Amino acid sequence: MKILIINGPNLNLLGTRQPEVYGVQTLSDIIFSLQKAFSDIEILHYQSNIEGELINEIQNSVNKADGILLNAGGYTHTSVAIRDAISSVATPVVEIHMSNIAAREEFRHQSLIAAVCVGSISGFGANSYHLGISALQTYLQQGR
Amino acid sequence: MKILIINGPNLNLLGTRQPEVYGVQTLSDIIFSLQKAFSDIEILHYQSNIEGELINEIQNSVNKADGILLNAGGYTHTSVAIRDAISSVATPVVEIHMSNIAAREEFRHQSLIAAVCVGSISGFGANSYHLGISALQTYLQQGR
Amino acid sequence: MKILIINGPNLNLLGTRQPEVYGVQTLSDIIFSLQKAFSDIEILHYQSNIEGELINEIQNSVNKADGILLNAGGYTHTSVAIRDAISSVATPVVEIHMSNIAAREEFRHQSLIAAVCVGSISGFGANSYHLGISALQTYLQQGR
Amino acid sequence: MKILIINGPNLNLLGTRQPEVYGVQTLSDIIFSLQKAFSDIEILHYQSNIEGELINEIQNSVNKADGILLNAGGYTHTSVAIRDAISSVATPVVEIHMSNIAAREEFRHQSLIAAVCVGSISGFGANSYHLGISALQTYLQQGR
Amino acid sequence: MKILIINGPNLNLLGTRQPEVYGVQTLSDIIFSLQKAFSDIEILHYQSNIEGELINEIQNSVNKADGILLNAGGYTHTSVAIRDAISSVATPVVEIHMSNIAAREEFRHQSLIAAVCVGSISGFGANSYHLGISALQTYLQQGR
Amino acid sequence: MKILIINGPNLNLLGTRQPEVYGVQTLSDIIFSLQKAFSDIEILHYQSNIEGELINEIQNSVNKADGILLNAGGYTHTSVAIRDAISSVATPVVEIHMSNIAAREEFRHQSLIAAVCVGSISGFGANSYHLGISALQTYLQQGR
Amino acid sequence: MKILIINGPNLNLLGTRQPEVYGVQTLSDIIFSLQKAFSDIEILHYQSNIEGELINEIQNSVNKADGILLNAGGYTHTSVAIRDAISSVATPVVEIHMSNIAAREEFRHQSLIAAVCVGSISGFGANSYHLGISALQTYLQQGR
Amino acid sequence: MKILIINGPNLNLLGTRQPEVYGVQTLSDIIFSLQKAFSDIEILHYQSNIEGELINEIQNSVNKADGILLNAGGYTHTSVAIRDAISSVATPVVEIHMSNIAAREEFRHQSLIAAVCVGSISGFGANSYHLGISALQTYLQQGR
Amino acid sequence: MKILIINGPNLNLLGTRQPEVYGVQTLSDIIFSLQKAFSDIEILHYQSNIEGELINEIQNSVNKADGILLNAGGYTHTSVAIRDAISSVATPVVEIHMSNIAAREEFRHQSLIAAVCVGSISGFGANSYHLGISALQTYLQQGR
Amino acid sequence: MKILIINGPNLNLLGTRQPEVYGVQTLSDIIFSLQKAFSDIEILHYQSNIEGELINEIQNSVNKADGILLNAGGYTHTSVAIRDAISSVATPVVEIHMSNIAAREEFRHQSLIAAVCVGSISGFGANSYHLGISALQTYLQQGR
Amino acid sequence: MKILIINGPNLNLLGTRQPEVYGVQTLSDIIFSLQKAFSDIEILHYQSNIEGELINEIQNSVNKADGILLNAGGYTHTSVAIRDAISSVATPVVEIHMSNIAAREEFRHQSLIAAVCVGSISGFGANSYHLGISALQTYLQQGR
Amino acid sequence: MKILIINGPNLNLLGTRQPEVYGVQTLSDIIFSLQKAFSDIEILHYQSNIEGELINEIQNSVNKADGILLNAGGYTHTSVAIRDAISSVATPVVEIHMSNIAAREEFRHQSLIAAVCVGSISGFGANSYHLGISALQTYLQQGR
Repeated sequence: MKILIINGPNLNLLGTRQPEVYGVQTLSDIIFSLQKAFSDIEILHYQSNIEGELINEIQNSVNKADGILLNAGGYTHTSVAIRDAISSVATPVVEIHMSNIAAREEFRHQSLIAAVCVGSISGFGANSYHLGISALQTYLQQGR
Repeated sequence: MKILIINGPNLNLLGTRQPEVYGVQTLSDIIFSLQKAFSDIEILHYQSNIEGELINEIQNSVNKADGILLNAGGYTHTSVAIRDAISSVATPVVEIHMSNIAAREEFRHQSLIAAVCVGSISGFGANSYHLGISALQTYLQQGR
Repeated sequence: MKILIINGPNLNLLGTRQPEVYGVQTLSDIIFSLQKAFSDIEILHYQSNIEGELINEIQNSVNKADGILLNAGGYTHTSVAIRDAISSVATPVVEIHMSNIAAREEFRHQSLIAAVCVGSISGFGANSYHLGISALQTYLQQGR
Repeated sequence: MKILIINGPNLNLLGTRQPEVYGVQTLSDIIFSLQKAFSDIEILHYQSNIEGELINEIQNSVNKADGILLNAGGYTHTSVAIRDAISSVATPVVEIHMSNIAAREEFRHQSLIAAVCVGSISGFGANSYHLGISALQTYLQQGR
Repeated sequence: MKILIINGPNLNLLGTRQPEVYGVQTLSDIIFSLQKAFSDIEILHYQSNIEGELINEIQNSVNKADGILLNAGGYTHTSVAIRDAISSVATPVVEIHMSNIAAREEFRHQSLIAAVCVGSISGFGANSYHLGISALQTYLQQGR
Repeated sequence: MKILIINGPNLNLLGTRQPEVYGVQTLSDIIFSLQKAFSDIEILHYQSNIEGELINEIQNSVNKADGILLNAGGYTHTSVAIRDAISSVATPVVEIHMSNIAAREEFRHQSLIAAVCVGSISGFGANSYHLGISALQTYLQQGR
Repeated sequence: MKILIINGPNLNLLGTRQPEVYGVQTLSDIIFSLQKAFSDIEILHYQSNIEGELINEIQNSVNKADGILLNAGGYTHTSVAIRDAISSVATPVVEIHMSNIAAREEFRHQSLIAAVCVGSISGFGANSYHLGISALQTYLQQGR
Repeated sequence: MKILIINGPNLNLLGTRQPEVYGVQTLSDIIFSLQKAFSDIEILHYQSNIEGELINEIQNSVNKADGILLNAGGYTHTSVAIRDAISSVATPVVEIHMSNIAAREEFRHQSLIAAVCVGSISGFGANSYHLGISALQTYLQQGR
Repeated sequence: MKILIINGPNLNLLGTRQPEVYGVQTLSDIIFSLQKAFSDIEILHYQSNIEGELINEIQNSVNKADGILLNAGGYTHTSVAIRDAISSVATPVVEIHMSNIAAREEFRHQSLIAAVCVGSISGFGANSYHLGISALQTYLQQGR
Repeated sequence: MKILIINGPNLNLLGTRQPEVYGVQTLSDIIFSLQKAFSDIEILHYQSNIEGELINEIQNSVNKADGILLNAGGYTHTSVAIRDAISSVATPVVEIHMSNIAAREEFRHQSLIAAVCVGSISGFGANSYHLGISALQTYLQQGR
Repeated sequence: MKILIINGPNLNLLGTRQPEVYGVQTLSDIIFSLQKAFSDIEILHYQSNIEGELINEIQNSVNKADGILLNAGGYTHTSVAIRDAISSVATPVVEIHMSNIAAREEFRHQSLIAAVCVGSISGFGANSYHLGISALQTYLQQGR
Repeated sequence: MKILIINGPNLNLLGTRQPEVYGVQTLSDIIFSLQKAFSDIEILHYQSNIEGELINEIQNSVNKADGILLNAGGYTHTSVAIRDAISSVATPVVEIHMSNIAAREEFRHQSLIAAVCVGSISGFGANSYHLGISALQTYLQQGR
């Protein structure tokens, strides 16, 4: 089983960016701990700050991954184009957020992409990634 | 570690209610599989269709549980009173939904209680409960 | 044919509550006159001021009634949970109101439950109940 | 007792128009079955696709009918002028719809005319007409 | 100077319709008193309940009138088509209302046609017509 | 008969302020022409840029005027306090505007004070004042 | 004089719940201090977390109290049914809140029940109860 | 192949109405140039300012045309009844506008009828008609 | 203890203004009865119809009062500037209204100033002033 | 005549992406058929998933094309920046969509870019491109 | 060059009012430092808490200043009348705010007056005044 | 002191793009004049039409600049991702706009990024850049 983790804008700064919100682990730390925890899954990783490159990668998933774990960052709330990319591929997508977006600014309460994902997980810090991989794994094995 | 699962209105009908949305497992089946999967956690369970009884149980959690897994059903979108109950106790609460609420009617897109929970998980069917227990477990162990 | 009439909050006060809006007949008077008018139908009756008990009764209808006549009172405009209960059972539900809700306060103009009922009747005082039973009877006999 | 049935735009197509929504009975079939069912009532009928002609007919009702059964079709949601016509005459009006308008597009959820009618009935297909005549009959006999 | 008075839906009922709102004068009474008061102006009059016939008459004004006094009744708040008719002809239009529309239901507070008229007068009963003719007369004589 | 004309903010600049919108007549010119046109009416005049002073003058009207002609300028759209002042006195008030407020910015389309005035006149430049006095005169003489 | 104090959801936790918002007095402490302060009034007390039980108690007030002091907690902002219960009984109701609801989240700014109460008091902590009893007492004695 | 062109309110004025927006060609000029350009298609034409007559013609299309080209003018934004007429017939409808409605007033940005048409074309002046016929022709030949 | 009562626009008319809403007591009557009832408090009084003068007085309170009782009248719903004045001084402010603002027009339901006051009292007529003084007294003595 | 076709996000997947919505033709197929159909026009083509690269290409059009045919995909509804790019160049732009955006989700009903284009065409599948080229051709030849 | 600085409500309290928001400099300190920094400009200063006096001063500027620097305080968000005053005079106006209004309450995010000013500056504390003078100076010298 | 100027979409066209809005200076002209005017500051410059590249540059600022001057162009109103980038770095950011965005289309009135910047400057054409550098300089020197 191959899972592609796609991280959107500013997530490359994890560990230094607002640690009180996002914790002190870097993105590499998180990927490393995921690989350790899910040793039977091949974990691929991609990060970009550019909306269209995230779309490119979602499209490319068709050839290299069974599922996508997507943290679209700030594009979550504004990108019809990423939503369309998810609808355009058969690869199932799970949406995650490290922070509890419902407890932040009003404009973060709605996700434009959640409706075309399998499901959403938010608020558990780095553990949101672990839960997301686990959710995808079950979904790919059991069809839900 | 003791975790209290609180299920709100109509979840007692799981297995018979709209199986295309909620699956064929009954609530007992799910609780049983959770107990099997998390054998080191004491799992308590409560279900009611009555908003105020859910509030009573959230208040009672103080004496019997380390964390709450809450599926508030239809009250998710309308209950300030349940939100206040969560704020009133120190017990951490994780919100779950079996269906992907972002993909359903407009009035289900906002959760009134998410902002006062640790985090939210939705869309993974019965597996939302497993992911929720796992999330609570990590939160109780690691403070996040 | 068995029809279950479910009355929501404050309808137990009929006859004394705002008689200029709701008339002088008590709920017992209305049930009695329905039984007289529809002598070939077994009419069951339930009233509660508690939202969750109304949900319980809707769920219980499965075992005892062919159709439900529902006057959800003030919960009409606020209860996602009652809407979900109606969706959760196969029993057809007809919504009635004694007053013309479109002619009252703005917040009474929308019914959260109408969309999952067979149809709605409002504005005819106690006669709304008679019309509702008649509508259910035809629906159960003719599939519409 | 004389009752004038006024049907608005596109109801002349009943029987051929979207039969999955509106059934296979033509408007003539419905009128015929009403005349049979309410043999002691003189039933008059008028249909037009033109908003202003519906207003003309509502105004004319003063001289020929004791009550009006009105299915204003698409004008239900947009016509202040029909609302004003109803307010302008003493003849009581009952509003009906064959489909359950609350279960259709957002813009059909509000009726501009309901507030000035005696009451409203929607969702029972051709039976909505029968229920409407029955409601008017009781209203004219009992003042409610 | 020729002025065409165009009256929209339900204004043919003046004198009998809601006299507490619209007074006891019939439309004929008002036209007659206008002809008496403005003896040097040729006053033409047209009334219809049909939106499109009002549009026809506005278009026809080009050949027979120097100005239009328009009471569009209920179409005031809903008719883009009448607005377009006014924009389509060079004849200046003054909008009037007998009742004070700002003191009535919310949906009467906005006029879709006011923005393309010279000006608006509302709230003075039958005198609104007198004031409107006077306003048009000055406008035609002085360019304002 | 005594009529008090109250002009609100910036109307003291008439003649110099945006002449393409408000014309070249000064406020004195307008008052003078009103006195000439309505020689049998005693015309009083007050202007202030201060909201509270306009309220003071509306209150003072009780002792010196039979009716008020009010051009509240920019306060028209924002002043609950002026609305309350109008409601607090028995003196009838007619609202006027020189420009056609419906043809300007969105925030000028609603008047907070219109609902408590006898009626409103807008769009006729300096002639709005003449029409307003005429409207008040008729209202005071005929009760409408 | 008998006054019934009705407390809604989560108020049973007073003293332990968010003391920075609600203070350290328990509900018993408050009731006790009220009885001491208003020794000539018979003070009855009822608390429930269940919306419908609050409705039951409001209905029961008819037989046992001259006035009701109501802190409806989270139901304040969502309950049409409690509003209807207040309208359904002749007993006057005064609404109180310990916190300043206008200074909290947006969804707490509107009270659905205030419009059918005599008046509202909010923001004075436990003293809101004292002020409320005092307000009811005066109202019952003086008709305001 | 027979195509029925239906033009709504004020389009009979083409050539004289706001030529800076709609050009100098009359409706006859346009129909003539369409007949010349599409010589293998039988082009029928109907224009009315009356909403209900447009509905009549849409209904009549069943017997005389393979497709409809509809410029509903001002009714585009307000007519649920025309939308229903389009839904009621099997004839495919293409919506056109001469002006770019997205570049005009806010209330012209939404079309109530677009959702039930095959597609929409706006902004190309008289050429919108040519493009519309071409679109219908391809649709009728290729099923898209 | 010194308390400054500040009354806003139109409250100088108390006793004559809409007595069915505001009662027959004049402002002097109320101040007098307050002085009698709270003989140990020095009561200062200020009234103005001018928003900015109310701001001046709030600012001046620093030197002469321990607390402010504010009835801002119509400015309650529109004045950011008064809100800022309250925030700018250390003097605690209690907001009162004689009428029940939640039972009046929609635009009176929100107070722009409540959020920066200690608390609010509305609906008790002249007694609102007594309750307000009492609330301030307790607040100044007990810090709440 | 040179026309530049610019395709936005996810249109590179045409033929495989949701064929029930977008058909089975690939983007290459469409470009090829356009070149065949419009042999006297030089057709250039550019596709990118990156919003800013679309802006770059619109800017570059100045040097290489007489007109632009733009299908901005999901950026249609969210991109002020693309709108500004269109306004920044003299090259005329025609907006097209393959699907009927008015018949899809609410957030697709408004186009942020339509107002600065010559016109819009939507709903005709691959034929939308043909109609768009034809529209541009006429516009470039005839100034409309 | 003469520049008139106009300060609105509560800015007279600078130095004592919420120093964490507005700093510790008094208004005199700021004016003094401006005079020192811009020694070749004649700086006039006016402050009032009264909306209408600010309007008076804006009107008076015509005779004494080449430009206005306006900090309208709380009136920024509510005053159509000040906006009209700015439109009524030829003197260019620059709007400033000390705090970053976009980072404060929702109701401070929109300025009613910005649209009629040359430009706006906010968020730089006392330096906003220096930047504003500099902006006006350049504007007056260079026409922008 | 090093200041990084970041320009967003379409600003590379300055001098040719809508000169009536943006002036005739090219971006190079502006940068050159800034370097001349602020000779003691090292001015770096970056421009891109790609949202994600602007985010990259904001992130890179950490290593090369003391402050950022940001003109985010069309992304100002739509980019949560740029807002997050600003929050993610310690470098202070000043927002500028050449045009007065409050005087343009409704969708330009709100800036999503202003709330996380030090302050905002808009409307002064090329001078906005000079004022912005000056503001940053003071902020870096004085902490405000």
